[in-house]
Amino acid sequence: MSINEISAKARRASLRMAAATTEQKNQALEAIRTALLDTADVIVSANAKDLARAEKGNLDAPLLKRLKFDQSKIDTVCEGIESLTALDDPVGQTLRATELDTGLELYKVTCPIGVIGVIFESRPDALVQISTLCLKSGNAALLKGGSEAMQTNRILAETISKAAVAVGMPDGWLGLLETRGDVAEMLNLEDDIDLIIPRGSNEFVKHIMNNSNIPVLGHADGICHVYIDANADIDMAIRIAVDSKCQYVAVCNAEETLLIHENIAADILPKLKEALEAKGVEIRGCEKTQSIVDVKAATEADWKTEYLDYTLSIRVVGSSQAAIEHINTYGSGHTDTIVTGSKETAMAFMDSVDSGNVFWNCSTRFSDGFRYGLGAEVGISTNKIHARGPVGLEGLLIYKWRMIGNGQIVADYGGPDGKKFTHTKLDKQWLR
Amino acid sequence: MSINEISAKARRASLRMAAATTEQKNQALEAIRTALLDTADVIVSANAKDLARAEKGNLDAPLLKRLKFDQSKIDTVCEGIESLTALDDPVGQTLRATELDTGLELYKVTCPIGVIGVIFESRPDALVQISTLCLKSGNAALLKGGSEAMQTNRILAETISKAAVAVGMPDGWLGLLETRGDVAEMLNLEDDIDLIIPRGSNEFVKHIMNNSNIPVLGHADGICHVYIDANADIDMAIRIAVDSKCQYVAVCNAEETLLIHENIAADILPKLKEALEAKGVEIRGCEKTQSIVDVKAATEADWKTEYLDYTLSIRVVGSSQAAIEHINTYGSGHTDTIVTGSKETAMAFMDSVDSGNVFWNCSTRFSDGFRYGLGAEVGISTNKIHARGPVGLEGLLIYKWRMIGNGQIVADYGGPDGKKFTHTKLDKQWLR
Repeated sequence: MSINEISAKARRASLRMAAATTEQKNQALEAIRTALLDTADVIVSANAKDLARAEKGNLDAPLLKRLKFDQSKIDTVCEGIESLTALDDPVGQTLRATELDTGLELYKVTCPIGVIGVIFESRPDALVQISTLCLKSGNAALLKGGSEAMQTNRILAETISKAAVAVGMPDGWLGLLETRGDVAEMLNLEDDIDLIIPRGSNEFVKHIMNNSNIPVLGHADGICHVYIDANADIDMAIRIAVDSKCQYVAVCNAEETLLIHENIAADILPKLKEALEAKGVEIRGCEKTQSIVDVKAATEADWKTEYLDYTLSIRVVGSSQAAIEHINTYGSGHTDTIVTGSKETAMAFMDSVDSGNVFWNCSTRFSDGFRYGLGAEVGISTNKIHARGPVGLEGLLIYKWRMIGNGQIVADYGGPDGKKFTHTKLDKQWLR
Repeated sequence: MSINEISAKARRASLRMAAATTEQKNQALEAIRTALLDTADVIVSANAKDLARAEKGNLDAPLLKRLKFDQSKIDTVCEGIESLTALDDPVGQTLRATELDTGLELYKVTCPIGVIGVIFESRPDALVQISTLCLKSGNAALLKGGSEAMQTNRILAETISKAAVAVGMPDGWLGLLETRGDVAEMLNLEDDIDLIIPRGSNEFVKHIMNNSNIPVLGHADGICHVYIDANADIDMAIRIAVDSKCQYVAVCNAEETLLIHENIAADILPKLKEALEAKGVEIRGCEKTQSIVDVKAATEADWKTEYLDYTLSIRVVGSSQAAIEHINTYGSGHTDTIVTGSKETAMAFMDSVDSGNVFWNCSTRFSDGFRYGLGAEVGISTNKIHARGPVGLEGLLIYKWRMIGNGQIVADYGGPDGKKFTHTKLDKQWLR
C-alpha cells in the first residue's frame, strides 16, 4: 500500500475509533498485551536480526542497548499496557455543560483528534507505548520508527494491529511507515493526518516543522537554564546546578547555561567549578566568570547551543531581570529554574520567563511526564498552543460541542419579543 | 516602523504583559473605555472619511453599514469593554495541582500565548473587541483590519494603544498593520508571532493557512449539514432545516446541504420544498430527490460548495451511516445536525461525525460564541488541535507548568533506595 492509501485507511479507521466504547478499547488493549506475550519468541528473534545488523554496522553501545528488545522489555511494556488499561477513558469527559434555554443543552466533550503521525527513535518500546496511547485515546496512528529496529517494528506493529482488529478495532487503525521517503510523503497528507509528533534530533524536528502544514507537537531544542539569584542558598544552588547539568546530560531537560547574579558570583563560582569539574564538566564562562575562576571563554554561540554533553556555559548577570531577558532571548521555551530565597523574585521569574516549565528551587530534570505523574508521556512540547511541556494523553485529545434540543430554531431568539438564552451552568456529565 | 520591528516590539511587550496583574489589565481596559468615549468626535469624523471614500468606490450597502462607526456603535463597544472587565481573569487559573513529594509542588497554570496576529473584515468594532480581548488575556496583538476602514482603524488603534500604555501596559502591545504586504511579511515572522486568527473569505483563510508556519486558528469553509433521519418529527425537521438555511444565509454556520433518510423522503420533500421556496431558496437535488419533487439537479460539486446564499443541495441517503459518511466526506468539520426521535441514532451521529459542533434536534445556527454563552468570541475554529468550534477567551491562552521545591534534585529519586514520588492531587490554587 502507498502512504496515501495507508493514511486514507487510517482516516476511515479513526472515524470509527472515535465512537468506540471504553470497554471496546480496553478489550483491545488486553488483546494486544496477550498477543505480545504470546508472540514474544518471534519478537525476540526479529530483534536479534536487527541487533546483528546494527553490530555489523558498528552502532554505538548506548544505541545498541536502546535497540535491544528482550523478554524483560516485553514484560515491561506489557505492564505499561496494564496501567494504561486501568486509566479512566480520556474520551467523553465533559469539560463544560450549559443550559442555553429550557430543553436546549450544550456539552463540551473530549474526543480523539483523529489520525496521529509519530516519528520516533530506535527504541522498539516506543512503538508499543505510542500505539497503545493512541488506541486508548481513540486515535488512529501512523508510526515511523528508527530504521535500525525495522524487523522488530514490523513484527510489533503487525502483532498489535491484528490483535486489536480481531476484537473489533477497525482495520487500518495502525499503519507502519518504514523509510524517510514515507515520512516525506506523510508531511503532505494534511487531509488525512491531524497531528505529527516527531521525536529525535533538533535538525530533524525543525525539518518536520518547516516542511508540513500539519500541526506539529514537539520540541526542537532544549536549551534549559538555571539562574542563581543573589538570595540563593549556596549549597542548594550548587546541588541544583550540578544535578540539572549532570544527572543525565543527553536529554532535553538538562541545563545548558547557568546564570549567576553578580552579587553571589564570587562566593559561589569557585565551589561550583569544583563540583562541576569533579563530574567532568567543561565550563565556558563570560568575561566576568573568567575574572573569578579560570575557565574557557564562552562566545555568543554558546548561549544558543544545546550541548547534550558534559559542557556548561556560565554567565554572570546584573539582576534577575537580566537573567529573564537572557532566557527569553536564548532559551528554547523548555525548562528554566530559579534558585532564590526571595518569593517575590521567584514569582516574577516564573511569570516572565516564557517557557513551558518554570521552576523555583528544584532541578530542571524534573520536567518529565513520568515525574509529573501524567501516567503516560506522549512527548515534550515547546509549542505555544494546544499542549505545552510534558504532554500526557490529553495532548491526543480535542473536544466537540454537542448540543441536544427538542426543535429549537434561532429565529425564535433575539428581537424584543424573542426567547432569551438562560446560559445556566449545568452540573451534568454527557452520557452516551 | 517595519513589520519586523512592530512584531519584535510586540514580542517584548508580550513578555511584560504575561506578568501583568488582573488589576493592571482591568485598569487599562477602563482607560481604553474612557479614552474611546472622550475621542468619540475624532473617531466619528475619521469614520466619515472612510464612509465617503467607500461611497465613492460604490461599496455595497451591507458593507457600508458594517463600516459605519457612529456614537451608538462606540457606546456598544464600550459596554462590551465593561462586560469584559467584569469577567474573571482567564490568566493564572490552576488547571491541575500535584504534590510530587513533600515540599515539591507542581501547578499547571493558564497563561497568555504571547503575540496574536488577527486579520479581520471591515467592521471597526472588531478592532476594539479583538484588542481588548487580547489585553484581558495578557496577549500582545498585531491587527490588520479592512482597508476600507483605514482612517477609523488608525484612530482607534492609536487611542486604545495609548490609553493602555498611559496606565502601565508596555509600549508596542498593540500594533496596526495596514497593507496586504504587511500581512505577507507577518506570515514569515514565526519567531515573534505565536498564533494567527484570520477572519474572512474561504480563499483568504486558506491562503494564510498554506503560507505560514505560524499556527492558524480559524475556519475556511462552513459546509454545514442537516440530516433528517427516518425517525424524525416531520414538522420539527422542516422548521430546523428552514431555520438552518434561511435565518441568515451569509454566515458560516448556515446549512448548505440537507440529507434525508429514504424512508421519510417521499413524506417530507414536498412540504420541505414548499417551505424553502416560500423563503426564496433554490433547491438542487440528487436523482432520488428529483424523482419525488421537481427541482434542479445537484452535481458532485454541490456537495462541496458553501453557497452562503439562498441555495440548498438535497441528497436522499439510505441510512444514518450513509449520512455520516457523506458529512465526513464533503463537510468542513464545522456544524452538523441530526433530526431524529431515536436517541441511539443521535448518539452514533454525534460520536461519528467529525465536526466541531454536532447537534441533535436543533438548528445549525446556534453554533456561535454568543449563543453558547462564552462571553466573548475570538473566532470559530475547524482546527483539530488547541480550540474547536466557537472559541472564547480560552483560545488565547495556554498554560505553564510551575514547580516549587526546596532544593530537590533528580539524583535523589529512582533506584532501590531512592526517594519515591507521591503524586498526590492537591486541592490548591496557584497564588501569585
